Amino acid sequence: MNTGSAPSEFDLIRSIARHVKASDAVPIGIGDDAAVISPTPHQHLVTTTDSLVLDRHFTSDWRAKDIGHLAMAVNLSDLAAMAAYPRWALLNLTLPKNSSYATQAWLDDFVQGFLSVDDGVTLVGGNLSEGPLNIGVVLIGEVAPGQAITRRGASVGDALVVTGSLGDAATALRLALDNKPVHQALQARLRRPTPRVLAGQHAAKHVHAMIDISDGLLADLSHLLDASSDTRTPLGAQIQLDALPTSEALQTLHLPDADRWNLQLSGGNDYELLMSVPPSKVDALLDDLQSARTPASVIGQVTAEPTVKLLDPRGDEFVPVRQGWDHFQEAMT
Amino acid sequence: MNTGSAPSEFDLIRSIARHVKASDAVPIGIGDDAAVISPTPHQHLVTTTDSLVLDRHFTSDWRAKDIGHLAMAVNLSDLAAMAAYPRWALLNLTLPKNSSYATQAWLDDFVQGFLSVDDGVTLVGGNLSEGPLNIGVVLIGEVAPGQAITRRGASVGDALVVTGSLGDAATALRLALDNKPVHQALQARLRRPTPRVLAGQHAAKHVHAMIDISDGLLADLSHLLDASSDTRTPLGAQIQLDALPTSEALQTLHLPDADRWNLQLSGGNDYELLMSVPPSKVDALLDDLQSARTPASVIGQVTAEPTVKLLDPRGDEFVPVRQGWDHFQEAMT
Repeated sequence: MNTGSAPSEFDLIRSIARHVKASDAVPIGIGDDAAVISPTPHQHLVTTTDSLVLDRHFTSDWRAKDIGHLAMAVNLSDLAAMAAYPRWALLNLTLPKNSSYATQAWLDDFVQGFLSVDDGVTLVGGNLSEGPLNIGVVLIGEVAPGQAITRRGASVGDALVVTGSLGDAATALRLALDNKPVHQALQARLRRPTPRVLAGQHAAKHVHAMIDISDGLLADLSHLLDASSDTRTPLGAQIQLDALPTSEALQTLHLPDADRWNLQLSGGNDYELLMSVPPSKVDALLDDLQSARTPASVIGQVTAEPTVKLLDPRGDEFVPVRQGWDHFQEAMT
Repeated sequence: MNTGSAPSEFDLIRSIARHVKASDAVPIGIGDDAAVISPTPHQHLVTTTDSLVLDRHFTSDWRAKDIGHLAMAVNLSDLAAMAAYPRWALLNLTLPKNSSYATQAWLDDFVQGFLSVDDGVTLVGGNLSEGPLNIGVVLIGEVAPGQAITRRGASVGDALVVTGSLGDAATALRLALDNKPVHQALQARLRRPTPRVLAGQHAAKHVHAMIDISDGLLADLSHLLDASSDTRTPLGAQIQLDALPTSEALQTLHLPDADRWNLQLSGGNDYELLMSVPPSKVDALLDDLQSARTPASVIGQVTAEPTVKLLDPRGDEFVPVRQGWDHFQEAMT
């Protein structure tokens, strides 16, 4: 007996389930206690999970479709950085009761946005709870044994390569916070980022180490250098600021260089890939990325001096306002 | 540069990582963009995800260890109901900044409780965000192809079997809400439920269908009957109320029968298994469950009449106060 007008948990699950295609690799999908999936023989699994939180990763004016897109994209970006092949997703949604989120219409749009990002991903299950809005995503991919690319392995002399352009999402966020109009192309980079899945797969045979840029170039570069360093050989890097890839949309804003560099170095939300590449393989990598239709730029080198030096076009050192983003500290890290 | 006294995201991740043992089946664990796991050849994967939300699944007076235990247990219960072998977990934690939750001490205790429930599970990765408290868990298990037990497959004449006892957790919750003292044994059933992992595995070769009892016996029985019904043969059930398994702790409360039945039928949080079993296999099932040290009781039968009849010891029909719990409706469903 359904006495209220609010949709039931089972109505909501049905709104999700009807977007899901059957798949041979999913013997048991949505609707049982757990999902059963049939992995490809002789592959390893690559698993990641990430949450979107209101007023942190998106705001209440966002369309359900864009939230769905972002939720999938940030997880795909983690798999891209491992050179993995995305296969299966689970959704773990906590929705406030009697809110615009706990409706069939919102879920319809959300799931459409979620599944539109990558054709190769099948939604196999998940969970629906009531509480403060939290959008949890689980993504499972596959990779041949030993072929996953980690953050470890960078070595002195490697070229540092980034895909796409940097600073667009951070600029969009800054403009919105300042109540200034936001260029469409920048807005799209914030709300509908393109995870570099194909680029990650193509890069695998050329690179020493790889990470996705979510916390900001400097923060994620530090993670890569830390993971690749050992006590005998601590690593650092030199970055040429005029090599930071800048989109046309960002160029047309004509920001002062220092402002633009700060956004590109520490803004975050880029979801590009940062790769550490032996010099002999840079050309082949760039060729391969081009065949994957992914622009890429050499922005610097890995050095034996364990600091990160940022050099402006005159060769002077630039000191950024902050290094990157840490969820649990507003302070600089 | 760490200017605050709050632990950083990376400090917190280290608090989690030091509880994790290395495992051959985890080539790349905590600390990269994603985890890499090496599944057993020729097995299917069984995946589930569930969240715990404050004031819904636990309250602020709970110890971190008990929250960790419950977070693992509810997910294990879902795998148990599929007859799966639990292997790998990911933690997706959203913690409020500057709260008692975003501390190394809390995470230490939480992860200890989390990992204490099942020796066979390795924590391989996860995510930490800042926001309203949300404890997301991903669990991945394995099962031989075709051997997972679903909610489908119950047929007329099957015996309905439940493990353990019913109503303990719901009674503990009710007493706490009424500010009455809560018997230790009942409290433990609410805060540290025992997922029936081994029982689920042992049951696999005997049962037609299986589900775990989280929303309450009647609600989960309905899910099992719905999934097993088709338009030509809708299914129902008959339950003998005096057969509902009752713990000693619940017996000593000497509740009026109707009150006790309501708690046992609709209270939820039991995390026992409900099985639909062909009559010829009941004895073998009960023997096998005994060897898995799991008490079990026959509580009724599957019928061709598509309703659920609850019969009291005199054979009269009992009408429960409500059917079960739906997260998005306070109303009866």
